[in-house]
This record gives sequence, structure tokens and C-alpha cells, in this order.
Amino acid sequence: MTSDAPGVESAFSLSKYLSERRDLIEKALDVALPASGGGHPDLREAMRYSLLGAGKRFRPILTLAACEACGGDWASALDVACAVEFVHAYSLVHDDLPAMDDATLRRGRPACHRKYGEAMAILAGDALLTQAWVLPARWGTAAPGRAEAAMRMSLELAAGAGVDGMVSGQAYDIDDRGPADVRALDDLHRLKTGALIRAAVRMGAIAAGADNKLLDKLTRYAGAVGLAFQVVDDILDVKVADTGKDSGADAARGKRTYPVMVGLEGARARARSLVEEAVAALDNLPGPAEPLAAIAGYTIERDK
Amino acid sequence: MTSDAPGVESAFSLSKYLSERRDLIEKALDVALPASGGGHPDLREAMRYSLLGAGKRFRPILTLAACEACGGDWASALDVACAVEFVHAYSLVHDDLPAMDDATLRRGRPACHRKYGEAMAILAGDALLTQAWVLPARWGTAAPGRAEAAMRMSLELAAGAGVDGMVSGQAYDIDDRGPADVRALDDLHRLKTGALIRAAVRMGAIAAGADNKLLDKLTRYAGAVGLAFQVVDDILDVKVADTGKDSGADAARGKRTYPVMVGLEGARARARSLVEEAVAALDNLPGPAEPLAAIAGYTIERDK
Repeated sequence: MTSDAPGVESAFSLSKYLSERRDLIEKALDVALPASGGGHPDLREAMRYSLLGAGKRFRPILTLAACEACGGDWASALDVACAVEFVHAYSLVHDDLPAMDDATLRRGRPACHRKYGEAMAILAGDALLTQAWVLPARWGTAAPGRAEAAMRMSLELAAGAGVDGMVSGQAYDIDDRGPADVRALDDLHRLKTGALIRAAVRMGAIAAGADNKLLDKLTRYAGAVGLAFQVVDDILDVKVADTGKDSGADAARGKRTYPVMVGLEGARARARSLVEEAVAALDNLPGPAEPLAAIAGYTIERDK
Repeated sequence: MTSDAPGVESAFSLSKYLSERRDLIEKALDVALPASGGGHPDLREAMRYSLLGAGKRFRPILTLAACEACGGDWASALDVACAVEFVHAYSLVHDDLPAMDDATLRRGRPACHRKYGEAMAILAGDALLTQAWVLPARWGTAAPGRAEAAMRMSLELAAGAGVDGMVSGQAYDIDDRGPADVRALDDLHRLKTGALIRAAVRMGAIAAGADNKLLDKLTRYAGAVGLAFQVVDDILDVKVADTGKDSGADAARGKRTYPVMVGLEGARARARSLVEEAVAALDNLPGPAEPLAAIAGYTIERDK
């Protein structure tokens, strides 16, 4: 593309976008759970340890991008985005517990329970989950006329996180029987990771005042992106296993994954088709859809 | 009192009141978490196992009584009351975990983790906590103009349950250092049990549309009742220990309690004074205050 080509000024750099949004979210998370707040000091420290620092912030970035794509003021939705990350952070703390995945490391650091003890990690997860609901309410009180939307966000977050979403996905995941076929594996991931991604996107759309038709488009996008992300995670796990590292290696543990069920190439084709589906859903949005489209593409870029 | 004495028709029977309200709450809890809902079937069963059946329903009864005392339509606040019980139920499931109190029994039945396994108990607690936020939102959508109040309830529930409330109380409770004096013990209980009781009462008052002055009265009531309840719990624990049963027996485990710190009679005097403080706060309310006053009295009645 030459310098005078049309559209060059709006050339979109995903890596710049992700890095800028990540920084803003990081700051907003720090404000949402300040070190100087009350309560038991070790509890607060364990919560902050699990929430801040590393992390791709994929879900809250989706919230902001969905708000933007629906023509909303994304910067005003930072609290909404943080709510999703609080839920994600709690889920990692509890997933890592000895009774669950018994992980020793998380994002290159000791897992919360290895650093603060198991009891404190349970409590830190509980408190992060509880605190998540403060944030839509805070957004709802920051300007008049938002209470109704804030309440809908609360419901979206509960649907994504609870018995109708992520926690049921976890329950299926620890189930020894495991998914019988690709359809059941899809269902598992739609709950385990898809439901919260769906909530993240829909909460951003609601912050922008999206109507039902617009919300449907964004929901289709979220469903496809969430599944694509998971398929690629499974593919990357095979690669990690091949290099002999002991992290990941789902297949070695006999876990049902997309590559195990449909082969590596089948899984790659599936991921590509899901990304196309996601991008197709972004047709004719009131705001810029480039970030959402680029994020969808990025899910398969990771497999390179 | 003779049959023609004034007020005889309105003679208040607390046991009848508690039993009727408990039944209504039980039914509302069953509706709020139906057996026929979606998600992982074992997860839903573990949630229902932990939520339904036994239980005094002390907190949700307080929510309804506070709503009534503030002149509100208490029957319409059942969902609000249930939200508090969902949070209480989750806290019991997680408290009983091996890494916490390692309890084998709860309300005369195997603790959730003994029946469904530790991983499922962690998830059931998480899902109960998440589902709690659906209920104020459901109340908020059941009639127009309620969204603002529903959002305030969400904030009350988070303040009572999370790092500013119950979970911090738990963190102090597992802290080996323990409270140094009666003041620190008060602080511990204000967080561990008081904060959720306060939320229960305030949510009921908000459901009734209470203004700040009225809310302050109810908050004073809640603070005194919550602490009285805990002091009497400690007294009852001494009695249980004296009869040689191994349940309770905080003192035997070297735990700091009111009887340990101020003696049995000192603790009894403290409980009586707290109940008086609670009843005094109920002066000049717009609705019937008898239930709240009787519940306050009941906290020390248990020690007989």
C-alpha cells in the first residue's frame, strides 16, 4: 500500500490496539481494587496478586471493542470491562486449587494457593467474584438513566459465570465421563469459556445502548470467537506436548480435545471457519468493527 | 391479659411468624433454583442440596421483617430475601471445605464436599454466590421504577459478602494470630456474620423505599442484633462443650470467644445490652416493628 492510498490513515494495528487497551484496563483494575482498601490485608493482597500484573485481558478488551462497534463511548465502559476480568481472575484462582487442576504456576508465578495457602485462595476467589458485581453498579450510578442497563449487565454476568455458564462448563470438565463427540465438546466449551466471552461482548453492547437486533449480531460474533479461541488453545496444547514440556499436554492426560477428535488439520479448518463466521456477523455495525474483526483473526494467528 | 384487653387480637407469636416465613422462603428458594433448570445436573443438585431443606432462614426472614417495618410490601421482596440466603448457603459450603473448617456434617447431613466431592463443592459454592445476583435484578424487573433500588441492593449484597464484609471476616477467623481483645473480636464478628445480616436488613429496607434516616435506624438494629447473635452462639458453644459433645467446643480449640474473654456472665450481660440497643433503634417506624423486636429478643432466648 502506497502512502497516498485511500484509508492508509486508518490502517489498523492490532498489536498497538491490544497493548493500549491492556494498559488502560490494567490501570482500571488497580483502581477497582486498590491496595489501600479495607478488609483483611492478606486477603486483599491475594486478590490483587491474582487480578493484576500479567494477563492478556482478552475478555475486557472484547467488552470495550463491542461497545465501540455498537457506537458507544468505550472509555466510559472500563468498569464494565473490569467486571468480566474480576470473574475471569476468580475462576483461575479456583481452577488452580488442589481439588481442581492442582496447578503450581499461573502466568509464570506461583498459583495463588501456593503463595497464600489454600484457604486464603478459596477466599480470594470468592471475594473477587463478589466484587465483580460492584462494577456494573458503579457504572450504573456514574450517569443518570443507566440503572436499567446496569441491571441487565448483572444478569448477563451471572448467566455467563454461573450454573448456566462457566461453572457448569467446569463441572463438565472435571467429569470423568468426558464429552462423547465433537458436539458435546462444543457444548462444554460454550459453557466453560464461551459463556463468559459472550457476557463480555454483550455487556459492552449494552453499555452502548444496543438494541436487540444489534445485540444478536454481537452474540453470534462472540459465540464463534469463543469457540475458535478454544479450538486454537487445543491445537497449541498439542504443539506444547510435542516439544516435551509438561505444561498443557491435555492429550497426554487422555483429555478429549479437538485435535484428538478431528485431527490437527481438521481442528485448524474448524478454527478458520469459526473466524469467518465471527467476521461475517459484524456486517453493518454503527461503530468501527475493525478491532473485533482483527481480534477474531488473531485467535488463529496465535497458531503460527 | 383478659380476652377483652386492648391489643389481644394482635398478640404476636414469634414462633408462628418464623415458621410461616420460613415456609414461604423455602418455597421461593425452590423456585429460584429449580431442579429442572439447565447446566451440569450434578452441579445443580449439589447447589440445591446446600440451599434447600434445613436452615433457620434467619437472614431472609430479617429482610422481609425489615421491609415490613419500613412500611413496604414484604411479600414482594421474597426474591430479595432469597438473594441473601444464596450467599449464606455458599458461605457454608466453602467454610466446610477441608482447607477451611473441614466439617463432615452440616445441618445433620453430610457436608456438600463429603457428598459430592471437593471440586464439585467448590463449584457449587461459586455458582450459588453467582446466582445470588440474579435475584435483586429479577426483583428490579418485576415492576417499573425499581432498577435504581435493585442496583443499590446489588451493592449492599457485595459490601456484606465480599472483601469489605463476610469474606474478610473469614480471613480473620482463619488467621492464627486471632483477635487480641474484645474490640478486635467485635470487629471480626461485625465482618464475619454482622456484615451479611446488615445487608439483609438494609436490602429489605431498600425494597420498601426507605429514606436514609430510616435506613440508619435499621442499620443500627442490624449491627446490634448481628453481634448479639454471635455472642449467644459463643455462649451456646460453651454449654455444648460442657456436655462433652465434640461439635462446637471453640474453647477446646483455643479459639477466642466472648465467654473466654469476658466470662459467661459478662457475655450474657453483653448480649442483653445489645438486644436492648437493637430494640431501641426501632423507635417510630412506619410499619410494624414487632417482628424485628421479637427476633432481637429471640437471639438471647436461645440461651435458655
